[in-house]
Formats: sequence, C-alpha cells, structure tokens
Amino acid sequence: MTARLLLEYDGTGFAGWARQPGKRTVQEEVERALAVLTGSESVPLTVAGRTDAGVHAWGQVASYELAAVPVRGLNAVLPDDIAVLACECVDSGFDARRDASSRAYCYRVLARRARSALDRGRVLHWRHRVDLSLLEGCAAALRGTHDFTAFTPTQTAHVRFVREVLAAFWRRGSGGDVLEFWIEADSFMRHMNRVLIGTMLEVAAGRRPLQDFVALLDGRRRADAGPTAPAHGLYLAAVGYGGERVLAGSPCGLRLG
Amino acid sequence: MTARLLLEYDGTGFAGWARQPGKRTVQEEVERALAVLTGSESVPLTVAGRTDAGVHAWGQVASYELAAVPVRGLNAVLPDDIAVLACECVDSGFDARRDASSRAYCYRVLARRARSALDRGRVLHWRHRVDLSLLEGCAAALRGTHDFTAFTPTQTAHVRFVREVLAAFWRRGSGGDVLEFWIEADSFMRHMNRVLIGTMLEVAAGRRPLQDFVALLDGRRRADAGPTAPAHGLYLAAVGYGGERVLAGSPCGLRLG
Repeated sequence: MTARLLLEYDGTGFAGWARQPGKRTVQEEVERALAVLTGSESVPLTVAGRTDAGVHAWGQVASYELAAVPVRGLNAVLPDDIAVLACECVDSGFDARRDASSRAYCYRVLARRARSALDRGRVLHWRHRVDLSLLEGCAAALRGTHDFTAFTPTQTAHVRFVREVLAAFWRRGSGGDVLEFWIEADSFMRHMNRVLIGTMLEVAAGRRPLQDFVALLDGRRRADAGPTAPAHGLYLAAVGYGGERVLAGSPCGLRLG
Repeated sequence: MTARLLLEYDGTGFAGWARQPGKRTVQEEVERALAVLTGSESVPLTVAGRTDAGVHAWGQVASYELAAVPVRGLNAVLPDDIAVLACECVDSGFDARRDASSRAYCYRVLARRARSALDRGRVLHWRHRVDLSLLEGCAAALRGTHDFTAFTPTQTAHVRFVREVLAAFWRRGSGGDVLEFWIEADSFMRHMNRVLIGTMLEVAAGRRPLQDFVALLDGRRRADAGPTAPAHGLYLAAVGYGGERVLAGSPCGLRLG
C-alpha cells in the first residue's frame, strides 16, 4: 500500500522542500514525524513539486510506502508551519512525482504604496506602476506550448525546456490591492515562475514591451529575461493526477481544493 | 493641525494597543517611531479602537497633534508587524476616538478538521459542527439596539451596556473553509466580539438553542453567555466617521478600504 499526503506549509522558515545537510527543510520535518509515528528509522517521501527556499504550499502532494497501517495524528507531531490536510491510502505504486500530470502555482503581488503588516512574507510588495491589461496580455501569450529556456538558470540540470501551459491568468485577490497570477503546466523548471513574474512585472511597469515578453517564449537566453522575483510571493497551489485540470483556465472557473 | 493615521498590524507580537509598562504594545511602537521622526520627546496618540492582546487590525485609526509638518517615512522606522497605510492632515481638533461614529470588526473561523500552517495565528481553528443557518440566525438577531451586559466581563469599567449594531453577517471567506463574521456597531465593549463568537459557535455546534442566544441580548448576566473566543481570529477592520457606514449591511455590499 501507498499513502498520499496533502500538505500545506509556510515556506518562510524552510530551505525549501528537499533535504539538505544542516538546513531545516519540509521533507526532513515530515519524514521525521512519520518515523516517530511509525517507529521506522526512515520513511522516504516522494513529492510532486520540489519547492525552493521560501516558497509556500497550499496543496503539495507527497507519497510514501506504507509499512503497515496508515498513520494518524501527524499534525500533532509536525511543527506548526506544516499541516497535513489529508492522508489517504492509494493504489500501491502511486508516486506523487511521476504520476502528477500537472502542477498549479499562484504568485501574489501587493500592488500599492504601503507595505503590509499582516501579509509580510506572504506577498511581493510592488510599488511600481501595474498595467493590468499588459499582465493579461502576458498571461494570454503564456498559454500553450513554449520553450522556457529564458526562464531558468543557465547552469541547469534540466534537459528538456519545453513546457505546456494549460492555464494562465491574472485576477484580483480578495482585499483589492493584491493581484494573483495563476498558472498550471505539465511541470515547471527551477525558478521558472519567479522569472516569469519578474519579467511580467517589467512589462506591467512599462519597462519592457509586451512583444519582447512574447518573443522570450521561443527559447531565448536567460540573460534576455527579467529578474527572479522573490520566493515569498509564490505558492504551490495544487497538483493534478490522471490528466485532471486543477485550474479551469479562467478566473471564474477556479476549482481548487 | 492634526494628523490622522490609518494602521494595519499583526497583533501576534503585541500586548494590545494600549501602553503597558514592560510590555510591547502597538501604541508604544508607533509613538516611538513618531518621536524619532519629529525629534519630539513624546507624541501622544488617540486611537479609535483599543484592541486587546493578539487582536489584529486592517484599518485602525489614530490621531495626534502635529507640531510642524507631517512626518514622512514612518514605515521605514516602524517594525514590520505594523504598517501605516495612509497619513493625512485633517482639521485641527480631530480626535480618532471621540469622533468615530462606528467600528467594524471581522472574526475569522477555519471550520475544518485539519489546522492551517499558513493561517496559524490569523484564524480560529474550529473542528466542531457548524450550522451556517444558525450562525445567520444569530447575526440577524444581533442587528439593532441591544443590552450586551452578557458579553463583557462582570468586573468592568463600562457604565453603559447598550450598543447599536448597524450591520452583522456571516459570509464564506476566500478559500472555502474560512467563515467570516462581520459586525459594525457604534462602539464595542471589552471582549464583546469574542464572547459573541464563543456563544454563536455554541449555537452553530448545536450545544445551545438559537433562542437562548437571542435572549442574551436583553441584558443577561455574563455567566449565561458562552466562552471568550481567542483573540487571534479578530480583526479591527475599519472605523467610520461622521455617520459613515463602513459595512453596507450585506455580504455583497462590503465596501471596505
């Protein structure tokens, strides 16, 4: 049997998902909690999205092989910046990473002069001009299949740079001053969402023409794209399996969770 | 001249608004920042709502007498759990507390089994049954003028226990699992919102009949009402001046900020 975990975490206090010697990671904390509850020495986890340091998750999916009965009470032994939203037994051989057919991310931008006290570390504070119609133009260009070489570091372990974007749109978040970018693709490369945001915000501020952004989707060099936006605005929102689309492609059709 | 500040803060790290010896308070931090920027020894603030320890604010209003020109750059010297959203010069003699005609609060309840990692300290986690129609029944009963003696501690500095509730409703927050209670009244007594929430949740869980809640609004004893809900779910949302209604009385008509 295999167990499938749905996880929420606040990325602020973590050096990302993946274990790293001497650093606090989400993987290490969850594996440690599972080991405590199962009495095993180690419970290796597979994960759908290996989030970077500082990136949050509303709907990360991880899986592990069940030695015996599924564990209960995980939330009681996890630190308070990680929460298990669901834990279920699935078909043996399920692999959270290999079986994922799509991932959806959200990037939150606070577009106003004053910073936020309650949303600090949860949103990018952007004081510059934002032309929402230009952002929407970028999102429209993103939909479909493109070569995203320009949106990941040059030194890379990736061998394939083409990704299929199934949904991409901007919408106003609750509260009014927060703009949210939602994107679903088959998979993402390292820093891809953050370089997309950094470049789209240049377009929205009038510093880069929309056509320039569109041209980047054709496999340009990293140096041609914009800066990498900070990690703390980014959320792994949901993971799709078996071809399921977790974003319906339009702001009105959002059907997460 | 008088200055009027609009403030947002994360109540987690504060012993409330009002100065207390040896404790970290919002008032002390803002007054200290103003003193630094103006070069004055002290800049006493008047405030619309003296929030308790742990209570957050999206739209607190404070005022102070301007010695000379208004200060700029307050956010740069304030700690990151306080933000000034607006600072303006108003008519001399404006008093944030005395001139306020209404205050609006929001209480956020996460009604699901699993706790939240990202919303910890920002929402009450409620695992019990919630009958939304019963909550709506409570909110309907709250509208109008009532004697709220049952909803504030027995040992009290208040001398008048009647308050006029201008708006009160429950609505689903963004995300789906969060229920929000919105209320606007001329003023609130100590703990009033938190005892209202504690008692309404008893009704929603089926532990207390709705009629029992309604009867409490007639000046019953504190012991007859429910427990005081935790402070960390409560937000001072906005303050109305000159008879302005900051909540329009219906979930659709919300026009904050």
